[in-house]
Amino acid sequence: MSAIVTAAMVVIGDEILSGRTQDRNIGYLATLLTAAGIDLKEVRIVPDEEDEIVAAVNALRERYTYLFTTGGIGPTHDDITADAIARAFGVPCEYDSKAYAMLEATYAARGLEFTEARKRMARMPEGAEHIANPVSTAPGFRIGNVHVMAGVPAVFQAMMDNVLPTLHTGTKMLSAMVPCPLGEGVIGGPLAEIQKRHPDTIIGSYPKFGEGRFSTELVVRARSPEALEAARAEIEKMVAELAA
Amino acid sequence: MSAIVTAAMVVIGDEILSGRTQDRNIGYLATLLTAAGIDLKEVRIVPDEEDEIVAAVNALRERYTYLFTTGGIGPTHDDITADAIARAFGVPCEYDSKAYAMLEATYAARGLEFTEARKRMARMPEGAEHIANPVSTAPGFRIGNVHVMAGVPAVFQAMMDNVLPTLHTGTKMLSAMVPCPLGEGVIGGPLAEIQKRHPDTIIGSYPKFGEGRFSTELVVRARSPEALEAARAEIEKMVAELAA
Repeated sequence: MSAIVTAAMVVIGDEILSGRTQDRNIGYLATLLTAAGIDLKEVRIVPDEEDEIVAAVNALRERYTYLFTTGGIGPTHDDITADAIARAFGVPCEYDSKAYAMLEATYAARGLEFTEARKRMARMPEGAEHIANPVSTAPGFRIGNVHVMAGVPAVFQAMMDNVLPTLHTGTKMLSAMVPCPLGEGVIGGPLAEIQKRHPDTIIGSYPKFGEGRFSTELVVRARSPEALEAARAEIEKMVAELAA
Repeated sequence: MSAIVTAAMVVIGDEILSGRTQDRNIGYLATLLTAAGIDLKEVRIVPDEEDEIVAAVNALRERYTYLFTTGGIGPTHDDITADAIARAFGVPCEYDSKAYAMLEATYAARGLEFTEARKRMARMPEGAEHIANPVSTAPGFRIGNVHVMAGVPAVFQAMMDNVLPTLHTGTKMLSAMVPCPLGEGVIGGPLAEIQKRHPDTIIGSYPKFGEGRFSTELVVRARSPEALEAARAEIEKMVAELAA
């Protein structure tokens, strides 16, 4: 009996959709969750528009065990994630006294003014709990199953280090890769037969194109090591026979 | 009067969600569309599951001028995009005679068998038009406002070269960047005031973290060159004053 834990991600930011900034958080989170036995099932990239953020968050938080968001929690006018999450949960967005005091102390220690903009970073939905930010103080937060984090990769990654130990993890999805010198057109038929014989595995075929020709990486995924090995061995045999 | 043309993208593939493959098509499409005056408004990454693909395609094709999909159009059992798109449009998915003949001739010329797997690549929704694939023959297709393309970046990019000239383009969104040595906490308040005074622009603030401190890139976007320049000049003046 495998425990399945699922997740989705919402990436918030016009800069990703305009191509100005290359997202670096999706691949990071995907790899981290897979290693932890949590299945990332969907990612949405949405603009800095409250209605869009609310719609994406509400659609995904109800379907999956966990939702992770990145972006839009800084001090400027286009940082509207805290308000959007509060609206998604139907609660007020207010100054969090602990976050406020922490930020106030940090800026005082650095001899910097605690501006209205900086105070914005202490705002979060009522009932939210902090996600510590060891890089630059201003915390992310968790409310329900939604984890709200920074978009700057160094900060996001540091926050995830704090989030990961708090998550329920599932039976880890194992994977094995069989390299294949042949294109998908040759192996497609036999591979589909192997998939049919091994319904408790997910077999993927990933074409690569280089030096004017296609080759393939065949990847089996399964939660059971025995199921994985049985399918892997059949695929290896198939490749050896077809490539001979 | 600006013409606004919008777009969304669906990235199809378990391999992106597992972290096994790093997506390289989102940033490429975002940059290409922005340069063409088309606003990319949402991206969804979904697994190789027909229901998920159908739901994402139907949600997005009705909201935006164009929808672009990548992935899942190869010859293997996990390539289910053509079937999913046909179901989304409520039409049959059948062998396209032109694509079939083209693939048959290509494999014959290369002395290769036209396997059942390879024949799969000739399947498309009834009424679809080809998107030529100069890299590896098997075409993508367009049906309605949905453009269905390969996930392999070299093939996707070659297909987009053929798609781009067929698109209606809008008034191009112009942008200007003002580098700022200060963090967002200092500039956030004054920047919000500038945004209020320039409602026909979109002003974004993008924090960067390096060498132990934050700096910021302030980006103004507008469709009118005059509106862009007016906001840019104010931001530049603000940065000069605050950094003095």
